Amino acid sequence: MSLLEQINTSKNIKELSRKELKLLAFEIRERIIDVVSKNGGHLASSLGAVELTLAIHYVFDLPKDTLIWDVGHQSYAHKLITGRNDAFDTLRQYKGISGFSKIKESPYDGFTVGHSSTSISAGLGICHAKYLNKDTSDVISVIGDGSLTAGLAYEGLNQTGDLKRNLIVILNDNDMSISANVGALSSLLSRTFSAKYLQSMRNQFGAFLKSLPKIGNDIYKIAKRSEESFKTFMTPGILFEAFNFDYFGPINGHNLDHLIDILINIKNPKDPILLHVTTVKGKGYAPAEKNPIYFHGVGSFTIDTGKSNKKSNGIPTYTQVFGSQMTKLAKTNEKIVAVTAAMPEGTGLTEFSRQYPDRFLDVGIAEQHAVTFSAGLASKGLRPVIAIYSTFLQRAFDQILHDVCIDAYPVVFAIDRGGIVGEDGPTHHGLFDFSYLRCMPNMTIMAPMDENELARMLVTAIQHDGPIALRYPRGTGPGVEVEENPEPLKIGKAKVINQGDDLLIIAIGNSVIEAVKAKKRLEEKGINATIINARFIKPLDKDLIIEYAIKIKKIITVEEHVLDGGFGSSVLEMLADEGVTGFLLKRIGIKNRFVEHGPQNVLRKDYEIDDTAIVSAALKLYGKTID
Amino acid sequence: MSLLEQINTSKNIKELSRKELKLLAFEIRERIIDVVSKNGGHLASSLGAVELTLAIHYVFDLPKDTLIWDVGHQSYAHKLITGRNDAFDTLRQYKGISGFSKIKESPYDGFTVGHSSTSISAGLGICHAKYLNKDTSDVISVIGDGSLTAGLAYEGLNQTGDLKRNLIVILNDNDMSISANVGALSSLLSRTFSAKYLQSMRNQFGAFLKSLPKIGNDIYKIAKRSEESFKTFMTPGILFEAFNFDYFGPINGHNLDHLIDILINIKNPKDPILLHVTTVKGKGYAPAEKNPIYFHGVGSFTIDTGKSNKKSNGIPTYTQVFGSQMTKLAKTNEKIVAVTAAMPEGTGLTEFSRQYPDRFLDVGIAEQHAVTFSAGLASKGLRPVIAIYSTFLQRAFDQILHDVCIDAYPVVFAIDRGGIVGEDGPTHHGLFDFSYLRCMPNMTIMAPMDENELARMLVTAIQHDGPIALRYPRGTGPGVEVEENPEPLKIGKAKVINQGDDLLIIAIGNSVIEAVKAKKRLEEKGINATIINARFIKPLDKDLIIEYAIKIKKIITVEEHVLDGGFGSSVLEMLADEGVTGFLLKRIGIKNRFVEHGPQNVLRKDYEIDDTAIVSAALKLYGKTID
Repeated sequence: MSLLEQINTSKNIKELSRKELKLLAFEIRERIIDVVSKNGGHLASSLGAVELTLAIHYVFDLPKDTLIWDVGHQSYAHKLITGRNDAFDTLRQYKGISGFSKIKESPYDGFTVGHSSTSISAGLGICHAKYLNKDTSDVISVIGDGSLTAGLAYEGLNQTGDLKRNLIVILNDNDMSISANVGALSSLLSRTFSAKYLQSMRNQFGAFLKSLPKIGNDIYKIAKRSEESFKTFMTPGILFEAFNFDYFGPINGHNLDHLIDILINIKNPKDPILLHVTTVKGKGYAPAEKNPIYFHGVGSFTIDTGKSNKKSNGIPTYTQVFGSQMTKLAKTNEKIVAVTAAMPEGTGLTEFSRQYPDRFLDVGIAEQHAVTFSAGLASKGLRPVIAIYSTFLQRAFDQILHDVCIDAYPVVFAIDRGGIVGEDGPTHHGLFDFSYLRCMPNMTIMAPMDENELARMLVTAIQHDGPIALRYPRGTGPGVEVEENPEPLKIGKAKVINQGDDLLIIAIGNSVIEAVKAKKRLEEKGINATIINARFIKPLDKDLIIEYAIKIKKIITVEEHVLDGGFGSSVLEMLADEGVTGFLLKRIGIKNRFVEHGPQNVLRKDYEIDDTAIVSAALKLYGKTID
Repeated sequence: MSLLEQINTSKNIKELSRKELKLLAFEIRERIIDVVSKNGGHLASSLGAVELTLAIHYVFDLPKDTLIWDVGHQSYAHKLITGRNDAFDTLRQYKGISGFSKIKESPYDGFTVGHSSTSISAGLGICHAKYLNKDTSDVISVIGDGSLTAGLAYEGLNQTGDLKRNLIVILNDNDMSISANVGALSSLLSRTFSAKYLQSMRNQFGAFLKSLPKIGNDIYKIAKRSEESFKTFMTPGILFEAFNFDYFGPINGHNLDHLIDILINIKNPKDPILLHVTTVKGKGYAPAEKNPIYFHGVGSFTIDTGKSNKKSNGIPTYTQVFGSQMTKLAKTNEKIVAVTAAMPEGTGLTEFSRQYPDRFLDVGIAEQHAVTFSAGLASKGLRPVIAIYSTFLQRAFDQILHDVCIDAYPVVFAIDRGGIVGEDGPTHHGLFDFSYLRCMPNMTIMAPMDENELARMLVTAIQHDGPIALRYPRGTGPGVEVEENPEPLKIGKAKVINQGDDLLIIAIGNSVIEAVKAKKRLEEKGINATIINARFIKPLDKDLIIEYAIKIKKIITVEEHVLDGGFGSSVLEMLADEGVTGFLLKRIGIKNRFVEHGPQNVLRKDYEIDDTAIVSAALKLYGKTID
């Protein structure tokens, strides 16, 4: 029996010798690599946090003390030693354990997370609640350096320093968030300071020395030569001290003894503490140490080589199609600039960034800024294309509405991972974008049914003189080849795909594919459907939809999105506004609940948005009559 | 003719002597005080920025150089010297000039603003666009210290330091945003550092001195005594230098000569520049200097005394009702905590903050953090009530959805300024909250028709075990007295107000009052309406609405909100889901556009959401027959 198999709760960790802890760290890494090589997952950051996890559990009294992992994708070791070793084989699998921290999964998970940079704010809230409840236990928030680039983390630091609650923030600094780190802050963390500032510091320091009684220019001269000594003043500590944190570190996050010693030291603080720990992303698995970006979030792979097991079906993903079209369009249109929030690889912009470095802008994990910054770019004649996952764009609701839509700047929102994304679960599905974008004046919203339509919509978007969004799914589509010169679409025009007199199916985006499948199955049952590929959520193709809705009074709308305020809702609104009545309309989409993790197709079936759901809705409509 | 009357464009400023500039500053203050005393407006911050405005126009070449005022409410002087002196009497009046910067109002306004903290991000975007366009003109973003507490500003600083574009950021530091400043940052700006850090700095410094050859303990001893000298190292400059900005200041923002000199000095920079200027909010008008919070955003007043001209109608505002109910409820329920984002006065929580200082949390301008922080509070058994304006809550969409709704924490959103707010215009109307909240699973949404219902909804919200929002308008309601012990409402239950067979009006919030007015007018025309006060947007009272919709097939929904995805939309969805058909439904609400500034009632009429709009819709329904 391995050591790991004997660990059921955090308490067992405390019973181990330091030597055993090191062995346990080794076993944990093996287990993580083994499972992630099969299931995929966030490998590199979890491998980097093994010793830190053990040290925290060794020193603190969990779950009485509260531990929050920012984002949560570094928490695999934590899961393994808190009663989830047996279930760990089901990591990220349907009905299995989550890839992120989840309070409903374990009392050891202090807060449910998925998006970055929430841990300080949540930790401070918990800290203040404990203070009011006269509970003296500790709260520890572990945050990566990448997560610190988001404004929310800063807002949290700022109030923590103000309230002076005894929050312990551990900065897990691996000089890398998901992609290479962006932002001035990262240069602070690596202690590089502008020559100019050092110069000014030297001057001030020199003046100070000269001002000291009895000491003349000699010392000043010596001091002037000691630039390195000045640099020691300029530690990251200055920043955190500015926020009223007591700063400790940086210390090596893979040295268990040092970690344990310092954690014992800072336990039960009186003031906010920031412990700066440096770790290596992918630690202990050579391929991941070598390529931490690839191994950040990875599919199944062969352990020996680190090579992906994924057999390509030869179809490029939507992301790849978007990326190659962007690179192509940028060649002839120098106004195009691409903006990403720390996801150049994930959004398919690597090649673009190589070819057009000045026109490629990675703003870091800072979605609000990405949008307002793009509005600024657009105000001076550029065509910024923000490539972003649906779930992250929602962080910039206010900036889209005010900074882009009020003046109707031509900013293109290329919304990747629209709809169900799969194994990353509730915090990552892109199921709310139609609703939150649709209420914004001046906004145009499209969703393609296949790869070629994506290419055409991108051309449409770049030509459009106003805010415009195109939203496409994760993974591959039907595999339609992209034309050499994709034609722009006419704004607000839908397309009739098949004709049939019995049923009208109006679908949007990849749901059109489900509608086509359903149509075939319905034909066997004697129901002939017209399918409209809506293409646009806003504006809707009023004339076309009304024409068919009046003829065919049994209507189904289909979308991979929550029903509340979504695409089907917009069809209902339009029909009511135009006084069309006497129809039955069944909306297919996600009912108002969060969608768990699992394979995309399984979830589509489970949450009733696939072809079977359409067939079943159609049959129900035929069990009823129009009153 | 005054000097001010001779200024038509920024260029005229350059022709003035420094003495004339000082006279002009005096005239500008007089003009601002005069107009704001009649129209109301943002007095204190505009008075504080007069010299800074003149200096910028004197030194820079506007509008070729781009000037962005963060938030924009300090830009009155800027408006006066850029061709808007004549129109300034119409400040904030219907069809008059805006209280904020607005690019469509003047080419001198570099970016349309209204919410805080966007100026660095937009400025950087414009800077980068100029760089790509080979335009060497400058970009200047002026941001207040209060605005720096928002994460967006930090995200902007962070990327500016990374891109190293030549953005000029002027920090207008008046130690006060809207209310007294919050956050550790403000203490940095006032140069206070923890004794502990200074101690550690001293130790390091001592060790350094001791390490110098030939210098012994003597100097160390002297240095040890010179704490003040150490403090000079710890300027705010450290923070901004950490972001790769070249820091200048702090300089007195009311000394025109110094301002002009330093601006000439930093013009056309190579790297990002931060100029730290200290100003006095309300400068030059004694009552405003004395009470800058009151004079931040003020109604009309008497210049001599500074006293408000507003004659109270004796009816407390919704904000006041909310505030007094909060204070009362907190007495018997110690779990209640109140959270505000820099608006204790605006949200009616001043008295609460006095009585329960530990349970009152002002997080600063940091809406994202306010929400995640509250989720943390709620996770440990407290009942946080976030009192916030509708338009500001939208900054926290992601945090409401993930951090509150996924685990269904009992966080109460007390959404003030829902609907049309009046003179603050498009960036401040609260017209999107139903749409963006309604798509969130686990969320309950209410809106009261009068003051007593507000009180009942607050009781309901605090008893409810999940995320819940109550949304109420700016200003006073019908003046209904609040019961001694307001009863909680049953979640999802509407109320029938009148009975009538010809028309069904389903209204929400203050629109119920318009419906009641319309009903009376319709009676004269022989149309008898049933009015349902929906009370809940989510969940809807299905049974009641269906019962009446089936009986009365002419339906009008009324809401003070955009139509897209709003309340009427939710009624249509529910009726479709339940297979109810054959009705005509007309939705009354804001059509998909931004609403300009003006008095609330004028705008309600203009944008067709008042009783007249209801009457006219009803008559139209009677011009049609059900097909």
